[in-house]
Amino acid sequence: MGSREDKQYLSDLDILFNPRNIAFIGASNNIMKWGFIILDNLIDGGYTGEIYPVTLKEKKILGRKCYQSIKDIGVPIDMAMIVIPAERVADTLRDCIEAGVKSVVVVTSGFSEAGEDGREIEKRIAEIAHAARMPMVGPNTMGVYGSGPSMCAMMAPLTPKPGEIAFVAQSGNLGTQIMGLGRTRGIGFSKFASSGNEALLHCENYIEYFGKDPDSKVIIAYIEGLADGSEFMQVAREVTRRKPLIVFKGGRSEAGSRAAKSHTGVLAGSGKIYDAAFRQVGAIQAATPDEMLDIGLAMSELPLPAGNRIGIITWGGGWGVVAADACEKAGLKVPQLSEQTIKTIDGILPPYWSRNNPIDLVSTMDRPAHIKCLEALASDTNIDAIIALSIVGTVNFLFNVPSTGEKKIPEEYMPVFEYFKKQDELIEKKVKELIEKYKKPIVGVSVDPLYDFNPDRSGGMVIFTTPHRAVDVIARMVEYKQYLDSLEE
Amino acid sequence: MGSREDKQYLSDLDILFNPRNIAFIGASNNIMKWGFIILDNLIDGGYTGEIYPVTLKEKKILGRKCYQSIKDIGVPIDMAMIVIPAERVADTLRDCIEAGVKSVVVVTSGFSEAGEDGREIEKRIAEIAHAARMPMVGPNTMGVYGSGPSMCAMMAPLTPKPGEIAFVAQSGNLGTQIMGLGRTRGIGFSKFASSGNEALLHCENYIEYFGKDPDSKVIIAYIEGLADGSEFMQVAREVTRRKPLIVFKGGRSEAGSRAAKSHTGVLAGSGKIYDAAFRQVGAIQAATPDEMLDIGLAMSELPLPAGNRIGIITWGGGWGVVAADACEKAGLKVPQLSEQTIKTIDGILPPYWSRNNPIDLVSTMDRPAHIKCLEALASDTNIDAIIALSIVGTVNFLFNVPSTGEKKIPEEYMPVFEYFKKQDELIEKKVKELIEKYKKPIVGVSVDPLYDFNPDRSGGMVIFTTPHRAVDVIARMVEYKQYLDSLEE
Repeated sequence: MGSREDKQYLSDLDILFNPRNIAFIGASNNIMKWGFIILDNLIDGGYTGEIYPVTLKEKKILGRKCYQSIKDIGVPIDMAMIVIPAERVADTLRDCIEAGVKSVVVVTSGFSEAGEDGREIEKRIAEIAHAARMPMVGPNTMGVYGSGPSMCAMMAPLTPKPGEIAFVAQSGNLGTQIMGLGRTRGIGFSKFASSGNEALLHCENYIEYFGKDPDSKVIIAYIEGLADGSEFMQVAREVTRRKPLIVFKGGRSEAGSRAAKSHTGVLAGSGKIYDAAFRQVGAIQAATPDEMLDIGLAMSELPLPAGNRIGIITWGGGWGVVAADACEKAGLKVPQLSEQTIKTIDGILPPYWSRNNPIDLVSTMDRPAHIKCLEALASDTNIDAIIALSIVGTVNFLFNVPSTGEKKIPEEYMPVFEYFKKQDELIEKKVKELIEKYKKPIVGVSVDPLYDFNPDRSGGMVIFTTPHRAVDVIARMVEYKQYLDSLEE
Repeated sequence: MGSREDKQYLSDLDILFNPRNIAFIGASNNIMKWGFIILDNLIDGGYTGEIYPVTLKEKKILGRKCYQSIKDIGVPIDMAMIVIPAERVADTLRDCIEAGVKSVVVVTSGFSEAGEDGREIEKRIAEIAHAARMPMVGPNTMGVYGSGPSMCAMMAPLTPKPGEIAFVAQSGNLGTQIMGLGRTRGIGFSKFASSGNEALLHCENYIEYFGKDPDSKVIIAYIEGLADGSEFMQVAREVTRRKPLIVFKGGRSEAGSRAAKSHTGVLAGSGKIYDAAFRQVGAIQAATPDEMLDIGLAMSELPLPAGNRIGIITWGGGWGVVAADACEKAGLKVPQLSEQTIKTIDGILPPYWSRNNPIDLVSTMDRPAHIKCLEALASDTNIDAIIALSIVGTVNFLFNVPSTGEKKIPEEYMPVFEYFKKQDELIEKKVKELIEKYKKPIVGVSVDPLYDFNPDRSGGMVIFTTPHRAVDVIARMVEYKQYLDSLEE
């Protein structure tokens, strides 16, 4: 559909993600209708611009004056959200264009995912929007989010935390749920789009835009199928020079591919071809959809490791064993410590310490010793990245606070509780310093299984709740670093 | 060490896990000492028998009268817990034997994990205990749990939920943390042992005992190294005929193996040899330590699938795609639906439904329709097991309740909230009925990322928070079923 210049507008999406106002076409007072639910979410999310509900049926919705038509509003509209039956979408788009609307989000379903007739209408609305160079999300999208104007224009009742991860998803259901998981974990997003049937705006358009967006540091993408593989590769190759692109590919198997076709009408391609393409352009593949978040978090907050040599420090033997195994399985090395490091730690731990990597802290309760050992490991020239097991986020577990919720800390334990709490904070602070000083990523593993679920997370350490998650994330960081290095050769 | 008959006492461990009383040797009033912490945990956990603290230093600890020596107590002791320096353990064991103590748990460390001298003392205490046919846990154990007398005799402040999973761990740290994870998730245990250095009681002794224990339905084991591989295999082969044995092997890699040696002094064996051995005896390997819990939960509450054909039903397209991919990757089949099923669902869902497995519920809010489709799938003769995505545990996510914790449900939404809450309950109830009726496992996946963390879980549906976890669990159930079938051929 047109030349490269012709398509420039498809990746200039500021107007879509930072609109100064929104017309909401198909607004409703019925709380079971999307025309109410999405509007309510938008208002509830604290959208900073003006919202103009459009409907023939009501005078007022949620305290806002309604307009009979987009053409009645009388001010230039940056974005129109469309939640009306499929057969009326084409006419409404023409009205939008006439009224000077600059971008649209078509929530309405019943297009190519619903059969041949739908496919025809979908083609037509894409042509209408393209002729006017008006970026169009969807149809069949679950909505968009933009942190700038706090725009939570989604079917799901989500108020994401503003942050530096941009996300495009070829499944609204999966996308909004990953956003929900991010909210629960306090992981912030800059932008999100459920790309729906991708009649006009495609996955790669969002990625190209996110690549240029100064507010987005890392891009994650749930991909089922790409209409134009070479376009994606060209875009991805450019983007990954500047920032990480983390992908999860759905529809790898025959059954998965069948399922993908039925929900967005897009053909999912073979897993192996995608694997090769992603590798070629430096896109990093996550093993599960939620792992995209783990990697995104780490990539947005930590330096990349210079190489694949991992130092492990652990408060308990077993987890050190498991982490070392996971490293080797993931293609990472767990090298011997340098003589200098062994000498330093000889002066800190009891004489029977392991003298090995993993460094087993032999159950010592001496928390300042933990910090000293961690620093010795961080300064070791044999080591590129560190996994710190059980020495962060310890206090809740030690006192069994989160597990039951009901347990009160007895008075006599309070001094010990306070001591460990303070030490946890000291360790997190020290880790930030060590990362700064040695430019190596340090990832923590907490013994508290609920540590991950902290909506108020405010950029402390990057901590996961199992060694496997920490290892897999570091392996993906190493992979991206190696890709970047290969570009320089 | 002796013949098979000689070792019979090593797997008759009722006295150890169901002791009527406990002598606690090395009790302390210092809250930073294990002699206080473990005793406090034991009392706090509500142990139903009598506890006799033994120490020379105090008259009373935690309101309990102290005894100067085990020999002063004057009643027969079922179990003695020993928390005193290593060099005094041998003499204390002799005192225990003289006083008629029937089993011991040696928490004390500084034995073979600490070098050659420690190895010598360890050998000696094993000989002392064996000569008296007195089962001995450890040394260097983090303790034991028995649900019968609510015995929480562990270093970690854990009060496990009573249940049907028995657990032995060759790392106390990893073991108690997995127990903590179980507590947080409301998954119950019958028995637990941190086996420590295994001077006398070995991993396979616990497994043999758990195999005979009527209170234990599933056994999980964290294994680093086996002193006597053929003994383990003989035991495991017998046990897996009666109940599932789920294992996770630590120390597969060179670095992991080094780490294992330094924390318990046991040589971890090569991963590949263990893989073959486990396969041969029908022990099911988990991919991560926490996956042992997922599998244990499912195996203890669900019937085994007759075969590997999985039916998927999903409220949202993307997760269906991801689940189908995961199934095929795990060696499971996602077959086409039978004609009967398609015909039935034609009468339930809108005409544009996918007619595929996965069954995509095309976002319909009609919850009773979900239940009807689920029943159609459960009755399909092409299907052995079912994964139900997003149709369970929906209410919290739909209303964003758990994600932030702070969000109040507005008055106008309350009827909808109550409706969905009720439907969630109805679905869970229906699923139990369908499992009963069709003898097929049905595993749910909730869209609420915190659904898993419910300490008050009381045997509702088995629900995980990602499709990958659900798929991996079912794949392991299929594997165990195939092993059992192979025995009958």
